[in-house]
Amino acid sequence: MNVFLLTAHPEPRSLNGSLSRFIVDHLESQGHQVQVSDLYAMQWKASLDRDDFQPADALDADGHFNPSTASGHALQRGTQPDDIAAEQAKLLWADAVIVLFPLWWYSMPAVMKGWFDRVYAYGFAYGVGEHSDHRWGERFGEGTLAGKRAMLVVTTGGWASHYGPRGINGPIDDLLFPIHHGMLYYPGMSVLPPYVVHRTSKVDDARYALIQAELGQRLNALWHTEPIAYRAQNGGDYEIPALTLRDDVVPDLTGFAAHVTPATSGTVTGT
Amino acid sequence: MNVFLLTAHPEPRSLNGSLSRFIVDHLESQGHQVQVSDLYAMQWKASLDRDDFQPADALDADGHFNPSTASGHALQRGTQPDDIAAEQAKLLWADAVIVLFPLWWYSMPAVMKGWFDRVYAYGFAYGVGEHSDHRWGERFGEGTLAGKRAMLVVTTGGWASHYGPRGINGPIDDLLFPIHHGMLYYPGMSVLPPYVVHRTSKVDDARYALIQAELGQRLNALWHTEPIAYRAQNGGDYEIPALTLRDDVVPDLTGFAAHVTPATSGTVTGT
Repeated sequence: MNVFLLTAHPEPRSLNGSLSRFIVDHLESQGHQVQVSDLYAMQWKASLDRDDFQPADALDADGHFNPSTASGHALQRGTQPDDIAAEQAKLLWADAVIVLFPLWWYSMPAVMKGWFDRVYAYGFAYGVGEHSDHRWGERFGEGTLAGKRAMLVVTTGGWASHYGPRGINGPIDDLLFPIHHGMLYYPGMSVLPPYVVHRTSKVDDARYALIQAELGQRLNALWHTEPIAYRAQNGGDYEIPALTLRDDVVPDLTGFAAHVTPATSGTVTGT
Repeated sequence: MNVFLLTAHPEPRSLNGSLSRFIVDHLESQGHQVQVSDLYAMQWKASLDRDDFQPADALDADGHFNPSTASGHALQRGTQPDDIAAEQAKLLWADAVIVLFPLWWYSMPAVMKGWFDRVYAYGFAYGVGEHSDHRWGERFGEGTLAGKRAMLVVTTGGWASHYGPRGINGPIDDLLFPIHHGMLYYPGMSVLPPYVVHRTSKVDDARYALIQAELGQRLNALWHTEPIAYRAQNGGDYEIPALTLRDDVVPDLTGFAAHVTPATSGTVTGT
């Protein structure tokens, strides 16, 4: 199978660097093909701006730079920058996508956010399919990347308890929901439960061996792990175009948890 | 009073550009002092990396680049890059901080994330105060920026219903929690309810006039609006060092909502 590994850490001799090499070696040793985008090593351009586009594509009918319009034009006309097109090709090539990063300020490092801002073009990751009063595009379970699997591998300095159900940072699954649901499931990927390493300053050799064993098992199970059971936008659970859950769907629930079907919602927390 | 406005949109002739000018004009017309960091106009460096540091500060005892160690050294030794030091000075100068951005992939644009990654140095925004088994620093209600107020102004392409309690994107207040609680409250700021503009492609003159009126009222109320009642880390509600809510504190609640005191938790949703 084809696996695309997206990583972002400024120090190769870090835990993230070690995990990146471990993931590649482990998957290749099992005969999988792996492509890696190491965003710091690539000096990835983080900011989506007008420089990403040729003058003829950059401006909308009013002469303003609108990122959606510009990225849609460039995709359609084949005038995207090479770096963006190359990353889209890796996504299309992949059967599974692994996204590895240190949690900085409760989200991904800026350079990785900029990868999503720039690579997720209009017509590629959003603005796909019919948009009308009856249909709001192909997204959240459908879309360009449907059929692929995705998994986050995340490291945090804080303790597991700090990210627990009643931990001060908020539950890790809720902190990751905007990435899981909003960035991976949105263009169609099936999202596996994340693998999270907490308390990174206390990783000695014994603990690193344990992490390798656990993560190795997760990689071995990449093709048969049950994905988080997010509800498909066009599967009948949502009113369109309001895009709210129908009144008869988990009527007592609000918030992120309501978008996971109850049968499995109890199993997505924690790793 | 002194107000610091942080913004990030690549097109000055956008709704975000108009709102930025409106905020400055409105506050200045009332006699306040305003400083603006327009990150796209400044061509802000988004990625925190080794280039931010002088060689003597960049590496830890093992010869590795560790962002926490490096930023702490640079802050302590006065060797930070000028751009980072200037932004820290604006935060210290401000009585209130307004953060204006378009919601891209359920979070802030990469360049703004990079502002937090780089400006929020160790010893400035985190790693402040005693860290031991009995005390986990001065954060979440205490810290370098205590006593200041902060408010997000956020624009989204989607409808308000999409971001409602049962909307497909997740509730806007939960999507913003990692920013509100994790980036603004963390170093001590009091966080006001956000002002959110939905469905940005449908802002005509009449609706823009309404937005100006609403936002103007929010700016007039900047000094007496009730902040979101997040629980202080060192206020007695949390076990230390586990940093979980004590068993007798809202015992039935988990998730983000548990970190707001119940008396006001009903009022923080929606604007």
